[in-house]
Amino acid sequence: MYHHLPKEITDLVGQFSRFPGIGEKTALRFVLFLLGKDENYINELAGQIENIKNLSLCQKCHNITTNGNFCKYCADPARDKKTVCVISNLPELMAIEATSDFLGLYHILGGKIDPLRGTGPEHLRINTLLARVKNDNIREIILAMNSDIPGENTILYLTRILKPLNIKISRLARGLPMGSELEYADPITLSSALEGRQEL
Amino acid sequence: MYHHLPKEITDLVGQFSRFPGIGEKTALRFVLFLLGKDENYINELAGQIENIKNLSLCQKCHNITTNGNFCKYCADPARDKKTVCVISNLPELMAIEATSDFLGLYHILGGKIDPLRGTGPEHLRINTLLARVKNDNIREIILAMNSDIPGENTILYLTRILKPLNIKISRLARGLPMGSELEYADPITLSSALEGRQEL
Repeated sequence: MYHHLPKEITDLVGQFSRFPGIGEKTALRFVLFLLGKDENYINELAGQIENIKNLSLCQKCHNITTNGNFCKYCADPARDKKTVCVISNLPELMAIEATSDFLGLYHILGGKIDPLRGTGPEHLRINTLLARVKNDNIREIILAMNSDIPGENTILYLTRILKPLNIKISRLARGLPMGSELEYADPITLSSALEGRQEL
Repeated sequence: MYHHLPKEITDLVGQFSRFPGIGEKTALRFVLFLLGKDENYINELAGQIENIKNLSLCQKCHNITTNGNFCKYCADPARDKKTVCVISNLPELMAIEATSDFLGLYHILGGKIDPLRGTGPEHLRINTLLARVKNDNIREIILAMNSDIPGENTILYLTRILKPLNIKISRLARGLPMGSELEYADPITLSSALEGRQEL
């Protein structure tokens, strides 16, 4: 039904439809929203999108960096260089940074092992993680994955290949979230909470 | 939590967050998606967004046009210039065009009367509609609105101000959609279908 529209619109609708989670109808809403904006707004948006090209990934941890070399965590002399928190993507880094409780470095895998979606270990940045463990004298690896199936797969796989390297490996604690009510907790969370109970 | 990110990212996240229906988390997903794309893709997207500036609205019906003057429907000598279908936004024009059953012109109001969202008749392109009726010798106005409350409000308002001009005014038929089952129809749809029953 979009062939009634000028090419400028159909092109951009097609482009926005490739964004994650965006279908043609939402893409068209975006374009109509932009049509209502003035020239300055359009120029600013186009410019900000072009700025993306200034960014690259940190050579060590694959976090985003603006200087083409190391990211601000890897370059920070105050961070503990012996502890590496392994995460699948950037939003998890931000969630952990928001706690201010972790002062080590990160390693962004770029995904989780998920055969059903065609993601195998070969698609993740595991080689660079192994190289760091060997070359940088890493002492502890924290596997900070969601406890869904791909997360558990990834934890299992990484544990198997990291164990022979004789370093400390840990995973995030599973249990009841703050403010939750025992009576409404799902059985798997409750099992994890029981299994990981702490002596007082 | 986004202050841990480079300015190039937070700026663009902020920009995408202003898109309709997009929150900060989705905006960040968009930016991460763009970060994974090559320079050509980024240039193409930025260019297509800038192309939006080539578009303007038809002076008559407020549809999108590339020539700054009349849209392809208003400029088409084959269309019936005496019948105007009044719609609130562009997607409705496309839905009607997809039927190939309407050969008149359109008038895009730019919204519906919805006091709860702060949209009054003064925010809609009603003056240009009245001018068309007077100057272009319009014979029939079809009010093609959704049958929700703002749609009904708009139909009521337009009927009241168009009636004195002595032209034919109609609205789209309400009734059972194709393939629907009577037993599951909601009472309001069923009432409309009974009220608008057609003699055979």
